[in-house]
Amino acid sequence: MGKYDVIIVGAGAAGLTAAIYTCRKNLKTAIFSVDVGGQTNLTNHIENYPGVDAMPGPTLMQKFLDNAKSFGAEMIMGKVARIDKKDKGFTVTLAEGTTYECRAVIACSGTVPRELGIPGEAKFLGRGLSTCTTCDAPLFKNKVTAVIGGGNAAVEGALELAHVGAKKVYLVHRRNEFRADEITMEKAKKNKLIEMVTPYEPVEIVGDKFVSALKTKHAETKQEKTLELQGVFKEIGHVVDISAVKHLVKVNERNEVIIDDKNQTSVPGLFAAGDLTTVPYKQTVISAGEGAKAALSCYQWLSKQKVTPIDWDIKGKK
Amino acid sequence: MGKYDVIIVGAGAAGLTAAIYTCRKNLKTAIFSVDVGGQTNLTNHIENYPGVDAMPGPTLMQKFLDNAKSFGAEMIMGKVARIDKKDKGFTVTLAEGTTYECRAVIACSGTVPRELGIPGEAKFLGRGLSTCTTCDAPLFKNKVTAVIGGGNAAVEGALELAHVGAKKVYLVHRRNEFRADEITMEKAKKNKLIEMVTPYEPVEIVGDKFVSALKTKHAETKQEKTLELQGVFKEIGHVVDISAVKHLVKVNERNEVIIDDKNQTSVPGLFAAGDLTTVPYKQTVISAGEGAKAALSCYQWLSKQKVTPIDWDIKGKK
Repeated sequence: MGKYDVIIVGAGAAGLTAAIYTCRKNLKTAIFSVDVGGQTNLTNHIENYPGVDAMPGPTLMQKFLDNAKSFGAEMIMGKVARIDKKDKGFTVTLAEGTTYECRAVIACSGTVPRELGIPGEAKFLGRGLSTCTTCDAPLFKNKVTAVIGGGNAAVEGALELAHVGAKKVYLVHRRNEFRADEITMEKAKKNKLIEMVTPYEPVEIVGDKFVSALKTKHAETKQEKTLELQGVFKEIGHVVDISAVKHLVKVNERNEVIIDDKNQTSVPGLFAAGDLTTVPYKQTVISAGEGAKAALSCYQWLSKQKVTPIDWDIKGKK
Repeated sequence: MGKYDVIIVGAGAAGLTAAIYTCRKNLKTAIFSVDVGGQTNLTNHIENYPGVDAMPGPTLMQKFLDNAKSFGAEMIMGKVARIDKKDKGFTVTLAEGTTYECRAVIACSGTVPRELGIPGEAKFLGRGLSTCTTCDAPLFKNKVTAVIGGGNAAVEGALELAHVGAKKVYLVHRRNEFRADEITMEKAKKNKLIEMVTPYEPVEIVGDKFVSALKTKHAETKQEKTLELQGVFKEIGHVVDISAVKHLVKVNERNEVIIDDKNQTSVPGLFAAGDLTTVPYKQTVISAGEGAKAALSCYQWLSKQKVTPIDWDIKGKK
């Protein structure tokens, strides 16, 4: 059974940055994740991460991983099923059954975009289908686009697309009423580039290599309507992945793990960072910063423990 | 008189990242600063900023600036003397007298090294007196040096000087107890090149063209002791630069600007990010994340203003 000072759950921007910082503090660190890159991977062209040229999200995330490994982080692929508090630290159990021990945990398992559940969704992700207006709107100058959703993210996304130069923006929502703030709705209604397509449900995303149309149907009459376009933005929200910690930590009404300004959760020794938490915006650079904060906070907390909770012999620490 | 949607004060990691984000939200943005790079510039070899290879701090910060400019940010060199709240936004006044208008401000003016307040301090800065071990240690090979301070920066600085070839390093601290981490202290105590000079306070930096000695006195007996040396490193921390906003915003006992989890200060429309604020750790990636949060929060706030606070015609917005 593996033993670590710190186990980090999730290998997106938050988790990988946390690993850089814990390793640099000489803490034996393992990262457990089902993927490398998290939400950043969904962006084909990240141009708002400062200090680098625009590049594909996965390329940037690979570099994060290289950084973390260069300081000694171990990357272990696998789904964390459960984290438990023990007398002297925590146990982390993978879905396949293996259990690991550690003194502290940093949960960075992030979110997954809610699924539309329609044909073309998987195929066109990153090929005209985006899950993030803030990330990708500037790529759709002079293009016809659609935003799917009825909340603030969707309506703000539509405004942003119009604002940055999309030729047209269909706002597709399955109800006539939107959940977005009134001020935002007023702006969207006044905007000549935005056309409301309600109450219509998306049925299929169509294209060859890239998106060329979005098929929709009327929510009541079921009549079909096909929108010719080059870009579809799915803004129907994300769901946090708290399956491994939900029995331990306090969460808010959106199931986000509640953290303080030092990324501490309600459980001493269990820290959290990134999209999984109550941090207000979901951006690569923000998650990276949060991961660093969580790691430094974790280090500070471990330094104050009088007795090393699990007194194994960690040799070969870097 | 220049008019902007957003004026950002300070061009370190926080300010430059904030500019990337406000510009991408199509807000006309100017950055005012006395330098480009802030605290990151003091690092000769930054290796904990994720996503890039290790490089000199100023190189990374130049890249941040290039990013911000590529999205349309204007960089205006100058010291901001004062920020004032007006009916319809803010005015920002430079030390030389020019005043600019804007709808919102993001304060990212960071910190400046704390002063010893002893004779010789101003005279010998850059002539044997340094405020940054990481930057200047390699210049003191085979020299006798002193580091003043009791925290991690001071003790790590002493170790670094010993490591890069200083002939001797006095570690001068006014108390017998150090605030540095125990692991670091252990290393310093074991190092034969490092001599603890405690509890001694620095009294005067002495020299002709360059530093030749540091006069100290015992904290209790007041007995003087003169250390013959060629280099003095001041590692007594930094103080926040709140001169432009101190009449406006709430600060804590360390003069740090109090922000909420959306980087809002106590003044609506005035946001803050980075080392200037109550954020617990001072790191490039953390400041970058904070700058992004402040910018998105600022955008959200501006979007909710029913009337554009200053209704000038912003043409040529990018």
